[in-house]
Amino acid sequence: MADAPRPTGTIATKGIELLTLSTPNGYKASILLEELKDAYGIDYTWQLIDIGLNIQKEPWFTALNPNGRIPVIVDHDRNDLAVFEGAAILNYLVARFDKDRKFSFDPATEPDQVAIAESWIAWQHGGLGPMQGQANHFLRYALDKQSHYAVQRYVGETERLYGVLNTRLADRDFIAGTGRGKYSIADIAAIGWASGLQYAGVDITKFPHVEAWVKRCHARPATARGFTIPKEAFYADSNRAKRLEDPEAAKKEEASLSFLKDAQKQFNYKYTSP
Amino acid sequence: MADAPRPTGTIATKGIELLTLSTPNGYKASILLEELKDAYGIDYTWQLIDIGLNIQKEPWFTALNPNGRIPVIVDHDRNDLAVFEGAAILNYLVARFDKDRKFSFDPATEPDQVAIAESWIAWQHGGLGPMQGQANHFLRYALDKQSHYAVQRYVGETERLYGVLNTRLADRDFIAGTGRGKYSIADIAAIGWASGLQYAGVDITKFPHVEAWVKRCHARPATARGFTIPKEAFYADSNRAKRLEDPEAAKKEEASLSFLKDAQKQFNYKYTSP
Repeated sequence: MADAPRPTGTIATKGIELLTLSTPNGYKASILLEELKDAYGIDYTWQLIDIGLNIQKEPWFTALNPNGRIPVIVDHDRNDLAVFEGAAILNYLVARFDKDRKFSFDPATEPDQVAIAESWIAWQHGGLGPMQGQANHFLRYALDKQSHYAVQRYVGETERLYGVLNTRLADRDFIAGTGRGKYSIADIAAIGWASGLQYAGVDITKFPHVEAWVKRCHARPATARGFTIPKEAFYADSNRAKRLEDPEAAKKEEASLSFLKDAQKQFNYKYTSP
Repeated sequence: MADAPRPTGTIATKGIELLTLSTPNGYKASILLEELKDAYGIDYTWQLIDIGLNIQKEPWFTALNPNGRIPVIVDHDRNDLAVFEGAAILNYLVARFDKDRKFSFDPATEPDQVAIAESWIAWQHGGLGPMQGQANHFLRYALDKQSHYAVQRYVGETERLYGVLNTRLADRDFIAGTGRGKYSIADIAAIGWASGLQYAGVDITKFPHVEAWVKRCHARPATARGFTIPKEAFYADSNRAKRLEDPEAAKKEEASLSFLKDAQKQFNYKYTSP
Protein backbone atom coordinates (compact mmCIF):
# COMPACT_ATOMS: atom_id res chain seq x y z
CA MET A 1 0.00 0.00 0.00
CA ALA A 2 3.09 2.21 0.13
CA ASP A 3 2.31 3.53 -3.34
CA ALA A 4 -1.43 4.01 -2.87
CA PRO A 5 -2.41 7.65 -3.26
CA ARG A 6 -3.48 9.56 -0.16
CA PRO A 7 -7.25 9.08 0.21
CA THR A 8 -9.25 12.23 -0.41
CA GLY A 9 -12.77 10.82 -0.49
CA THR A 10 -14.67 7.65 -1.25
CA ILE A 11 -13.67 5.87 -4.46
CA ALA A 12 -16.49 3.44 -5.23
CA THR A 13 -19.89 4.22 -6.74
CA LYS A 14 -21.68 1.02 -5.85
CA GLY A 15 -21.69 -1.60 -3.10
CA ILE A 16 -20.03 -1.28 0.28
CA GLU A 17 -16.85 0.74 0.72
CA LEU A 18 -14.78 0.17 3.85
CA LEU A 19 -12.45 2.84 5.24
CA THR A 20 -10.14 1.03 7.59
CA LEU A 21 -6.75 0.28 9.09
CA SER A 22 -5.09 -2.86 10.44
CA THR A 23 -6.37 -2.51 14.00
CA PRO A 24 -8.58 -4.75 16.14
CA ASN A 25 -11.60 -2.58 15.35
CA GLY A 26 -10.79 -2.31 11.66
CA TYR A 27 -10.64 -6.10 11.35
CA LYS A 28 -14.20 -6.47 12.63
CA ALA A 29 -15.46 -5.02 9.38
CA SER A 30 -12.99 -6.70 7.00
CA ILE A 31 -13.49 -10.13 8.58
CA LEU A 32 -17.28 -9.98 8.27
CA LEU A 33 -17.04 -8.61 4.72
CA GLU A 34 -14.73 -11.48 3.73
CA GLU A 35 -17.09 -13.98 5.34
CA LEU A 36 -20.04 -12.44 3.47
CA LYS A 37 -18.01 -12.70 0.27
CA ASP A 38 -17.50 -16.44 0.76
CA ALA A 39 -21.06 -17.06 1.90
CA TYR A 40 -23.01 -14.86 -0.52
CA GLY A 41 -20.58 -13.55 -3.11
CA ILE A 42 -20.90 -9.97 -1.79
CA ASP A 43 -18.01 -7.84 -3.04
CA TYR A 44 -16.72 -4.62 -1.53
CA THR A 45 -14.12 -1.89 -1.91
CA TRP A 46 -11.69 -0.77 0.75
CA GLN A 47 -9.25 2.04 1.41
CA LEU A 48 -6.45 2.20 3.95
CA ILE A 49 -6.81 5.25 6.19
CA ASP A 50 -3.42 6.10 7.66
CA ILE A 51 -4.20 7.58 11.07
CA GLY A 52 -0.54 8.61 11.35
CA LEU A 53 -1.36 11.15 8.63
CA ASN A 54 -4.57 12.20 10.43
CA ILE A 55 -6.68 11.45 7.36
CA GLN A 56 -9.52 10.45 9.68
CA LYS A 57 -9.69 14.08 10.86
CA GLU A 58 -10.11 15.57 7.39
CA PRO A 59 -13.49 17.10 6.55
CA TRP A 60 -14.45 14.48 3.95
CA PHE A 61 -13.88 11.78 6.56
CA THR A 62 -15.59 13.46 9.52
CA ALA A 63 -18.59 14.08 7.24
CA LEU A 64 -18.89 10.27 7.26
CA ASN A 65 -17.90 9.74 10.90
CA PRO A 66 -18.00 12.90 13.02
CA ASN A 67 -15.90 11.11 15.62
CA GLY A 68 -12.94 10.82 13.25
CA ARG A 69 -12.18 7.13 13.77
CA ILE A 70 -11.90 4.01 11.64
CA PRO A 71 -13.65 1.79 10.65
CA VAL A 72 -16.44 3.37 8.62
CA ILE A 73 -18.51 1.75 5.90
CA VAL A 74 -20.32 3.63 3.16
CA ASP A 75 -23.21 1.94 1.39
CA HIS A 76 -23.18 3.35 -2.13
CA ASP A 77 -26.36 1.47 -2.97
CA ARG A 78 -28.23 3.31 -0.24
CA ASN A 79 -27.47 6.94 -0.98
CA ASP A 80 -23.96 6.69 0.45
CA LEU A 81 -25.24 5.98 3.95
CA ALA A 82 -22.27 5.98 6.36
CA VAL A 83 -22.19 3.65 9.37
CA PHE A 84 -19.46 3.95 12.01
CA GLU A 85 -18.33 2.05 15.14
CA GLY A 86 -17.61 -1.67 14.93
CA ALA A 87 -20.74 -2.90 16.67
CA ALA A 88 -23.03 -0.80 14.45
CA ILE A 89 -21.18 -1.90 11.30
CA LEU A 90 -21.53 -5.58 12.22
CA ASN A 91 -25.25 -5.17 12.87
CA TYR A 92 -25.76 -3.22 9.66
CA LEU A 93 -23.96 -5.73 7.46
CA VAL A 94 -25.79 -8.77 8.80
CA ALA A 95 -29.19 -7.03 8.57
CA ARG A 96 -28.36 -6.07 4.99
CA PHE A 97 -26.69 -9.21 3.65
CA ASP A 98 -26.86 -12.18 6.02
CA LYS A 99 -30.24 -13.45 4.78
CA ASP A 100 -29.59 -17.04 5.89
CA ARG A 101 -28.34 -15.95 9.32
CA LYS A 102 -25.00 -17.66 8.87
CA PHE A 103 -23.20 -15.14 11.11
CA SER A 104 -26.10 -13.75 13.12
CA PHE A 105 -29.43 -14.60 14.68
CA ASP A 106 -32.95 -13.98 13.47
CA PRO A 107 -34.90 -11.40 15.51
CA ALA A 108 -38.18 -12.98 14.39
CA THR A 109 -37.46 -16.59 15.29
CA GLU A 110 -34.65 -16.48 17.86
CA PRO A 111 -34.90 -13.17 19.76
CA ASP A 112 -33.20 -14.69 22.81
CA GLN A 113 -30.10 -15.55 20.78
CA VAL A 114 -30.11 -12.03 19.34
CA ALA A 115 -30.15 -10.58 22.87
CA ILE A 116 -27.38 -12.89 24.10
CA ALA A 117 -25.18 -12.10 21.09
CA GLU A 118 -25.82 -8.38 21.60
CA SER A 119 -24.87 -8.63 25.27
CA TRP A 120 -21.50 -10.12 24.35
CA ILE A 121 -20.92 -7.72 21.46
CA ALA A 122 -21.63 -4.80 23.79
CA TRP A 123 -19.37 -6.39 26.42
CA GLN A 124 -16.58 -6.36 23.84
CA HIS A 125 -17.40 -2.92 22.50
CA GLY A 126 -17.63 -1.18 25.87
CA GLY A 127 -15.19 -3.27 27.91
CA LEU A 128 -12.71 -5.56 26.20
CA GLY A 129 -11.87 -3.12 23.40
CA PRO A 130 -11.56 0.11 25.36
CA MET A 131 -9.69 -1.49 28.27
CA GLN A 132 -7.25 -3.47 26.11
CA GLY A 133 -6.76 -0.31 24.09
CA GLN A 134 -5.75 1.55 27.24
CA ALA A 135 -3.39 -1.29 28.22
CA ASN A 136 -1.75 -0.96 24.80
CA HIS A 137 -1.50 2.78 25.19
CA PHE A 138 0.25 2.78 28.54
CA LEU A 139 2.44 -0.22 27.74
CA ARG A 140 3.40 0.67 24.18
CA TYR A 141 2.92 4.35 23.49
CA ALA A 142 3.20 6.18 26.82
CA LEU A 143 5.98 4.38 28.62
CA ASP A 144 7.84 7.67 29.07
CA LYS A 145 4.89 9.00 31.11
CA GLN A 146 5.87 6.60 33.91
CA SER A 147 2.25 5.74 34.66
CA HIS A 148 2.76 2.63 36.76
CA TYR A 149 -0.67 2.76 38.30
CA ALA A 150 -2.42 3.14 34.96
CA VAL A 151 -0.57 0.33 33.23
CA GLN A 152 -1.32 -2.19 35.96
CA ARG A 153 -4.93 -1.01 36.09
CA TYR A 154 -5.57 -1.63 32.41
CA VAL A 155 -3.52 -4.76 31.93
CA GLY A 156 -5.25 -6.13 35.03
CA GLU A 157 -8.72 -5.24 33.77
CA THR A 158 -7.87 -6.77 30.39
CA GLU A 159 -6.85 -9.99 32.14
CA ARG A 160 -10.07 -9.98 34.14
CA LEU A 161 -12.10 -9.63 30.95
CA TYR A 162 -10.28 -12.50 29.23
CA GLY A 163 -10.98 -14.54 32.33
CA VAL A 164 -14.69 -13.87 31.79
CA LEU A 165 -14.39 -14.90 28.14
CA ASN A 166 -12.39 -17.99 29.07
CA THR A 167 -15.20 -19.12 31.37
CA ARG A 168 -17.77 -18.41 28.66
CA LEU A 169 -15.84 -20.59 26.20
CA ALA A 170 -15.18 -23.46 28.62
CA ASP A 171 -17.99 -25.58 27.22
CA ARG A 172 -18.59 -24.04 23.83
CA ASP A 173 -16.82 -23.41 20.50
CA PHE A 174 -18.17 -19.91 19.89
CA ILE A 175 -19.39 -17.02 22.03
CA ALA A 176 -23.08 -17.00 21.06
CA GLY A 177 -25.64 -19.48 19.80
CA THR A 178 -27.26 -22.57 21.27
CA GLY A 179 -25.34 -25.73 22.15
CA ARG A 180 -21.64 -25.27 21.46
CA GLY A 181 -22.43 -22.05 19.65
CA LYS A 182 -22.24 -20.70 16.10
CA TYR A 183 -19.49 -18.54 14.58
CA SER A 184 -21.13 -15.12 14.54
CA ILE A 185 -20.63 -11.38 14.85
CA ALA A 186 -20.15 -11.95 18.60
CA ASP A 187 -16.90 -13.75 17.78
CA ILE A 188 -15.96 -11.33 15.00
CA ALA A 189 -16.30 -8.41 17.44
CA ALA A 190 -13.72 -9.89 19.81
CA ILE A 191 -11.30 -11.87 17.65
CA GLY A 192 -9.21 -8.89 16.53
CA TRP A 193 -8.49 -7.92 20.11
CA ALA A 194 -7.90 -11.50 21.22
CA SER A 195 -5.31 -11.91 18.47
CA GLY A 196 -3.00 -9.35 20.09
CA LEU A 197 -2.94 -10.29 23.75
CA GLN A 198 0.81 -10.36 24.18
CA TYR A 199 0.97 -6.78 22.89
CA ALA A 200 -1.31 -5.80 25.79
CA GLY A 201 0.91 -7.49 28.35
CA VAL A 202 -1.33 -10.52 28.80
CA ASP A 203 -0.21 -14.15 28.58
CA ILE A 204 -2.80 -16.00 26.50
CA THR A 205 -1.74 -19.40 27.86
CA LYS A 206 -3.48 -18.37 31.10
CA PHE A 207 -6.72 -18.63 29.12
CA PRO A 208 -6.68 -21.98 27.30
CA HIS A 209 -10.29 -21.80 26.09
CA VAL A 210 -9.64 -18.37 24.60
CA GLU A 211 -6.46 -19.66 22.98
CA ALA A 212 -8.28 -22.59 21.38
CA TRP A 213 -11.08 -20.30 20.19
CA VAL A 214 -8.59 -17.88 18.60
CA LYS A 215 -7.12 -20.77 16.60
CA ARG A 216 -10.62 -21.95 15.67
CA CYS A 217 -11.54 -18.53 14.31
CA HIS A 218 -8.27 -18.07 12.41
CA ALA A 219 -8.72 -21.48 10.77
CA ARG A 220 -11.59 -20.01 8.75
CA PRO A 221 -10.18 -18.89 5.37
CA ALA A 222 -12.39 -15.80 5.12
CA THR A 223 -11.55 -14.70 8.65
CA ALA A 224 -7.85 -15.21 7.98
CA ARG A 225 -8.19 -13.06 4.83
CA GLY A 226 -10.01 -10.41 6.86
CA PHE A 227 -6.84 -10.09 8.94
CA THR A 228 -4.88 -9.07 5.82
CA ILE A 229 -7.10 -6.09 4.96
CA PRO A 230 -5.84 -3.44 4.64
CA LYS A 231 -2.69 -5.31 5.76
CA GLU A 232 -1.42 -7.68 8.41
CA ALA A 233 -1.36 -6.47 11.99
CA PHE A 234 1.79 -5.11 13.51
CA TYR A 235 0.36 -5.79 16.97
CA ALA A 236 -0.73 -9.41 16.38
CA ASP A 237 0.68 -12.21 18.48
CA SER A 238 1.37 -14.05 15.22
CA ASN A 239 3.63 -11.17 14.15
CA ARG A 240 5.60 -10.97 17.38
CA ALA A 241 8.68 -12.95 16.38
CA LYS A 242 9.00 -10.95 13.17
CA ARG A 243 8.47 -7.68 15.04
CA LEU A 244 11.24 -8.48 17.50
CA GLU A 245 13.80 -9.15 14.75
CA ASP A 246 14.35 -5.39 14.82
CA PRO A 247 16.78 -4.78 17.73
CA GLU A 248 15.14 -1.44 18.51
CA ALA A 249 11.72 -3.12 18.78
CA ALA A 250 13.17 -5.88 20.93
CA LYS A 251 14.66 -3.29 23.29
CA LYS A 252 11.32 -1.48 23.56
CA GLU A 253 9.56 -4.79 24.17
CA GLU A 254 11.87 -5.55 27.06
CA ALA A 255 11.36 -2.07 28.51
CA SER A 256 7.58 -2.42 28.27
CA LEU A 257 7.43 -5.81 29.95
CA SER A 258 9.86 -4.77 32.66
CA PHE A 259 7.82 -1.61 33.31
CA LEU A 260 4.67 -3.70 33.61
CA LYS A 261 6.35 -6.09 36.03
CA ASP A 262 7.51 -3.19 38.22
CA ALA A 263 4.06 -1.60 38.11
CA GLN A 264 2.29 -4.80 39.08
CA LYS A 265 4.73 -5.32 41.95
CA GLN A 266 4.40 -1.73 43.12
CA PHE A 267 0.61 -1.95 43.28
CA ASN A 268 0.56 -5.52 44.53
CA TYR A 269 -1.47 -6.63 41.53
CA LYS A 270 -3.10 -10.02 41.71
CA TYR A 271 -5.10 -11.65 38.94
CA THR A 272 -8.73 -12.17 39.83
CA SER A 273 -11.37 -13.40 37.46
CA PRO A 274 -14.13 -15.98 37.63
CA MET B 1 -33.38 1.72 50.37
CA ALA B 2 -31.27 1.68 53.53
CA ASP B 3 -33.55 -0.92 55.05
CA ALA B 4 -33.92 -3.10 51.96
CA PRO B 5 -32.59 -6.59 52.56
CA ARG B 6 -29.35 -7.60 50.87
CA PRO B 7 -30.31 -9.04 47.44
CA THR B 8 -29.71 -12.76 47.15
CA GLY B 9 -31.42 -13.49 43.84
CA THR B 10 -34.18 -12.22 41.59
CA ILE B 11 -37.45 -11.36 43.35
CA ALA B 12 -40.09 -11.17 40.61
CA THR B 13 -41.80 -14.02 38.82
CA LYS B 14 -43.21 -12.13 35.86
CA GLY B 15 -42.32 -9.15 33.69
CA ILE B 16 -38.96 -7.41 33.53
CA GLU B 17 -36.72 -7.23 36.59
CA LEU B 18 -33.92 -4.68 36.61
CA LEU B 19 -30.79 -5.11 38.73
CA THR B 20 -29.19 -1.71 38.89
CA LEU B 21 -27.46 1.12 40.69
CA SER B 22 -27.55 4.91 40.37
CA THR B 23 -24.81 5.16 37.76
CA PRO B 24 -24.80 6.51 34.18
CA ASN B 25 -25.11 2.97 32.82
CA GLY B 26 -27.77 1.95 35.31
CA TYR B 27 -29.93 4.91 34.34
CA LYS B 28 -30.02 3.80 30.69
CA ALA B 29 -32.26 0.92 31.71
CA SER B 30 -34.40 2.73 34.28
CA ILE B 31 -35.03 5.70 31.99
CA LEU B 32 -36.20 3.53 29.10
CA LEU B 33 -38.33 1.39 31.43
CA GLU B 34 -40.00 4.51 32.84
CA GLU B 35 -40.61 5.81 29.31
CA LEU B 36 -42.11 2.45 28.31
CA LYS B 37 -44.30 2.62 31.39
CA ASP B 38 -45.70 6.01 30.35
CA ALA B 39 -46.05 5.05 26.69
CA TYR B 40 -47.41 1.50 26.97
CA GLY B 41 -48.19 0.84 30.63
CA ILE B 42 -45.36 -1.69 30.92
CA ASP B 43 -44.52 -2.31 34.58
CA TYR B 44 -41.28 -3.67 35.97
CA THR B 45 -39.51 -4.62 39.21
CA TRP B 46 -36.09 -3.35 40.27
CA GLN B 47 -33.48 -4.10 42.89
CA LEU B 48 -30.58 -1.95 44.02
CA ILE B 49 -27.28 -3.78 43.67
CA ASP B 50 -24.75 -2.22 46.03
CA ILE B 51 -21.41 -2.65 44.26
CA GLY B 52 -19.69 -1.50 47.46
CA LEU B 53 -20.81 -4.83 48.92
CA ASN B 54 -19.65 -6.71 45.79
CA ILE B 55 -23.09 -8.23 45.27
CA GLN B 56 -22.47 -8.14 41.53
CA LYS B 57 -19.69 -10.69 42.05
CA GLU B 58 -21.85 -13.23 43.85
CA PRO B 59 -22.63 -16.47 42.00
CA TRP B 60 -26.36 -15.78 41.60
CA PHE B 61 -25.49 -12.47 39.92
CA THR B 62 -22.66 -13.70 37.67
CA ALA B 63 -24.98 -16.48 36.52
CA LEU B 64 -27.02 -13.63 35.00
CA ASN B 65 -24.06 -11.48 33.89
CA PRO B 66 -20.73 -13.34 33.85
CA ASN B 67 -18.97 -9.97 33.73
CA GLY B 68 -20.27 -9.00 37.19
CA ARG B 69 -21.55 -5.52 36.32
CA ILE B 70 -24.84 -3.63 36.53
CA PRO B 71 -27.25 -3.10 34.84
CA VAL B 72 -28.81 -6.47 34.05
CA ILE B 73 -32.42 -7.16 33.11
CA VAL B 74 -34.16 -10.48 33.56
CA ASP B 75 -37.25 -11.23 31.49
CA HIS B 76 -39.36 -13.50 33.66
CA ASP B 77 -41.86 -13.93 30.83
CA ARG B 78 -39.18 -15.44 28.62
CA ASN B 79 -37.72 -18.16 30.80
CA ASP B 80 -35.74 -15.68 32.89
CA LEU B 81 -33.60 -14.61 29.96
CA ALA B 82 -30.86 -12.29 31.24
CA VAL B 83 -29.58 -9.40 29.10
CA PHE B 84 -26.55 -7.36 30.17
CA GLU B 85 -24.68 -4.24 28.96
CA GLY B 86 -26.58 -0.99 28.43
CA ALA B 87 -26.62 -1.06 24.63
CA ALA B 88 -27.96 -4.63 24.52
CA ILE B 89 -30.61 -3.85 27.15
CA LEU B 90 -31.85 -0.81 25.22
CA ASN B 91 -32.09 -2.85 22.00
CA TYR B 92 -33.83 -5.71 23.76
CA LEU B 93 -36.43 -3.55 25.45
CA VAL B 94 -37.41 -1.64 22.30
CA ALA B 95 -37.60 -4.84 20.22
CA ARG B 96 -39.79 -6.36 22.92
CA PHE B 97 -42.08 -3.46 23.88
CA ASP B 98 -41.72 -0.43 21.62
CA LYS B 99 -44.26 -1.57 19.03
CA ASP B 100 -45.04 1.97 17.85
CA ARG B 101 -41.35 2.89 17.61
CA LYS B 102 -41.72 5.81 19.97
CA PHE B 103 -38.13 5.50 21.20
CA SER B 104 -36.54 3.56 18.37
CA PHE B 105 -36.57 3.04 14.61
CA ASP B 106 -38.18 0.33 12.52
CA PRO B 107 -35.70 -2.02 10.83
CA ALA B 108 -38.30 -2.85 8.16
CA THR B 109 -39.24 0.67 7.12
CA GLU B 110 -36.33 2.90 8.23
CA PRO B 111 -33.16 0.78 8.21
CA ASP B 112 -30.99 3.87 7.65
CA GLN B 113 -32.28 5.47 10.85
CA VAL B 114 -31.65 2.20 12.69
CA ALA B 115 -28.02 2.23 11.47
CA ILE B 116 -27.48 5.87 12.37
CA ALA B 117 -28.94 5.39 15.86
CA GLU B 118 -26.78 2.28 16.33
CA SER B 119 -23.66 4.19 15.27
CA TRP B 120 -24.30 6.80 17.96
CA ILE B 121 -25.26 4.26 20.60
CA ALA B 122 -22.05 2.35 19.89
CA TRP B 123 -20.13 5.64 19.96
CA GLN B 124 -21.49 6.22 23.47
CA HIS B 125 -21.02 2.63 24.58
CA GLY B 126 -17.43 2.25 23.38
CA GLY B 127 -16.20 5.84 23.71
CA LEU B 128 -18.12 8.35 25.77
CA GLY B 129 -18.92 5.94 28.61
CA PRO B 130 -15.56 4.20 28.99
CA MET B 131 -13.53 7.39 28.61
CA GLN B 132 -15.66 9.50 30.96
CA GLY B 133 -15.54 6.59 33.38
CA GLN B 134 -11.75 6.69 33.32
CA ALA B 135 -11.79 10.47 33.82
CA ASN B 136 -13.97 9.94 36.89
CA HIS B 137 -11.65 7.24 38.15
CA PHE B 138 -8.45 9.26 37.98
CA LEU B 139 -10.08 12.48 39.15
CA ARG B 140 -12.27 11.09 41.93
CA TYR B 141 -11.04 7.70 43.09
CA ALA B 142 -7.34 7.50 42.33
CA LEU B 143 -6.04 10.95 43.16
CA ASP B 144 -3.50 9.48 45.55
CA LYS B 145 -1.94 7.58 42.62
CA GLN B 146 -0.62 10.92 41.28
CA SER B 147 -1.42 9.98 37.70
CA HIS B 148 -1.18 13.39 36.07
CA TYR B 149 -0.77 12.03 32.57
CA ALA B 150 -3.77 9.72 32.87
CA VAL B 151 -6.14 12.32 34.27
CA GLN B 152 -5.40 14.83 31.52
CA ARG B 153 -5.65 12.07 28.92
CA TYR B 154 -9.13 11.01 29.95
CA VAL B 155 -10.59 14.39 30.80
CA GLY B 156 -9.23 15.59 27.47
CA GLU B 157 -10.72 12.69 25.54
CA THR B 158 -14.04 13.21 27.32
CA GLU B 159 -14.01 16.86 26.25
CA ARG B 160 -13.23 15.86 22.67
CA LEU B 161 -16.18 13.47 22.66
CA TYR B 162 -18.58 16.10 24.00
CA GLY B 163 -17.28 18.39 21.28
CA VAL B 164 -18.37 15.75 18.74
CA LEU B 165 -21.78 15.52 20.39
CA ASN B 166 -22.09 19.31 20.54
CA THR B 167 -21.55 19.50 16.77
CA ARG B 168 -24.07 16.73 16.21
CA LEU B 169 -26.69 18.62 18.23
CA ALA B 170 -26.01 22.02 16.67
CA ASP B 171 -28.99 21.78 14.33
CA ARG B 172 -31.12 19.13 15.97
CA ASP B 173 -33.03 18.45 19.18
CA PHE B 174 -32.10 14.78 19.56
CA ILE B 175 -29.19 12.59 18.49
CA ALA B 176 -30.93 10.34 15.95
CA GLY B 177 -33.93 10.56 13.66
CA THR B 178 -34.75 12.64 10.60
CA GLY B 179 -35.15 16.41 10.71
CA ARG B 180 -34.49 17.75 14.19
CA GLY B 181 -34.52 14.17 15.49
CA LYS B 182 -36.66 12.05 17.77
CA TYR B 183 -36.06 11.26 21.46
CA SER B 184 -34.76 7.69 21.28
CA ILE B 185 -32.45 5.09 22.76
CA ALA B 186 -29.56 7.04 21.19
CA ASP B 187 -30.30 9.87 23.64
CA ILE B 188 -31.06 7.53 26.51
CA ALA B 189 -27.66 5.84 26.05
CA ALA B 190 -25.81 9.13 26.54
CA ILE B 191 -27.94 11.23 28.89
CA GLY B 192 -26.78 9.58 32.11
CA TRP B 193 -23.17 10.38 31.32
CA ALA B 194 -23.95 13.89 30.08
CA SER B 195 -25.72 14.62 33.37
CA GLY B 196 -22.47 14.33 35.33
CA LEU B 197 -19.95 16.33 33.32
CA GLN B 198 -18.64 18.46 36.15
CA TYR B 199 -17.82 15.30 38.08
CA ALA B 200 -15.55 14.31 35.17
CA GLY B 201 -13.75 17.65 35.21
CA VAL B 202 -15.54 19.03 32.16
CA ASP B 203 -17.30 22.39 31.97
CA ILE B 204 -20.62 21.82 30.22
CA THR B 205 -20.98 25.49 29.32
CA LYS B 206 -18.28 24.86 26.69
CA PHE B 207 -20.89 22.75 24.91
CA PRO B 208 -24.08 24.81 24.69
CA HIS B 209 -25.93 22.40 22.39
CA VAL B 210 -25.20 19.54 24.77
CA GLU B 211 -26.34 21.66 27.71
CA ALA B 212 -29.64 22.49 26.01
CA TRP B 213 -30.17 18.84 25.05
CA VAL B 214 -29.55 17.68 28.65
CA LYS B 215 -32.29 20.07 29.83
CA ARG B 216 -34.58 18.88 27.03
CA CYS B 217 -34.18 15.25 28.06
CA HIS B 218 -34.61 15.94 31.78
CA ALA B 219 -37.84 17.86 31.06
CA ARG B 220 -39.47 14.53 30.16
CA PRO B 221 -41.28 13.26 33.29
CA ALA B 222 -40.48 9.60 32.64
CA THR B 223 -36.81 10.33 32.02
CA ALA B 224 -36.64 12.43 35.19
CA ARG B 225 -38.19 9.51 37.12
CA GLY B 226 -35.65 7.15 35.55
CA PHE B 227 -32.95 9.22 37.25
CA THR B 228 -34.44 8.39 40.66
CA ILE B 229 -34.21 4.60 40.27
CA PRO B 230 -32.79 3.08 42.31
CA LYS B 231 -31.98 6.54 43.74
CA GLU B 232 -30.70 9.95 42.72
CA ALA B 233 -27.16 10.20 41.46
CA PHE B 234 -24.38 11.27 43.76
CA TYR B 235 -22.28 12.22 40.73
CA ALA B 236 -24.92 14.31 38.93
CA ASP B 237 -24.28 17.95 38.14
CA SER B 238 -27.69 18.67 39.64
CA ASN B 239 -26.49 17.22 42.95
CA ARG B 240 -23.23 19.14 43.08
CA ALA B 241 -24.26 21.96 45.42
CA LYS B 242 -25.74 19.47 47.87
CA ARG B 243 -22.68 17.25 47.64
CA LEU B 244 -20.36 20.13 48.46
CA GLU B 245 -22.25 21.06 51.64
CA ASP B 246 -20.12 18.39 53.27
CA PRO B 247 -16.79 20.14 54.08
CA GLU B 248 -14.86 16.91 53.47
CA ALA B 249 -16.42 16.57 50.01
CA ALA B 250 -15.69 20.24 49.26
CA LYS B 251 -12.05 19.72 50.21
CA LYS B 252 -11.78 16.66 47.97
CA GLU B 253 -13.45 18.58 45.14
CA GLU B 254 -10.88 21.33 45.39
CA ALA B 255 -8.05 18.81 45.44
CA SER B 256 -9.43 17.05 42.35
CA LEU B 257 -9.83 20.19 40.31
CA SER B 258 -6.45 21.53 41.35
CA PHE B 259 -4.84 18.20 40.42
CA LEU B 260 -6.50 18.33 37.01
CA LYS B 261 -5.31 21.88 36.43
CA ASP B 262 -1.73 20.92 37.30
CA ALA B 263 -1.92 17.86 35.08
CA GLN B 264 -3.24 19.80 32.11
CA LYS B 265 -0.52 22.42 32.55
CA GLN B 266 2.18 19.79 32.93
CA PHE B 267 1.19 18.07 29.69
CA ASN B 268 0.38 21.29 27.87
CA TYR B 269 -3.20 20.12 27.27
CA LYS B 270 -5.23 22.01 24.73
CA TYR B 271 -8.86 21.35 23.89
CA THR B 272 -9.36 20.17 20.33
CA SER B 273 -12.64 18.99 18.92
CA PRO B 274 -14.55 19.66 15.72
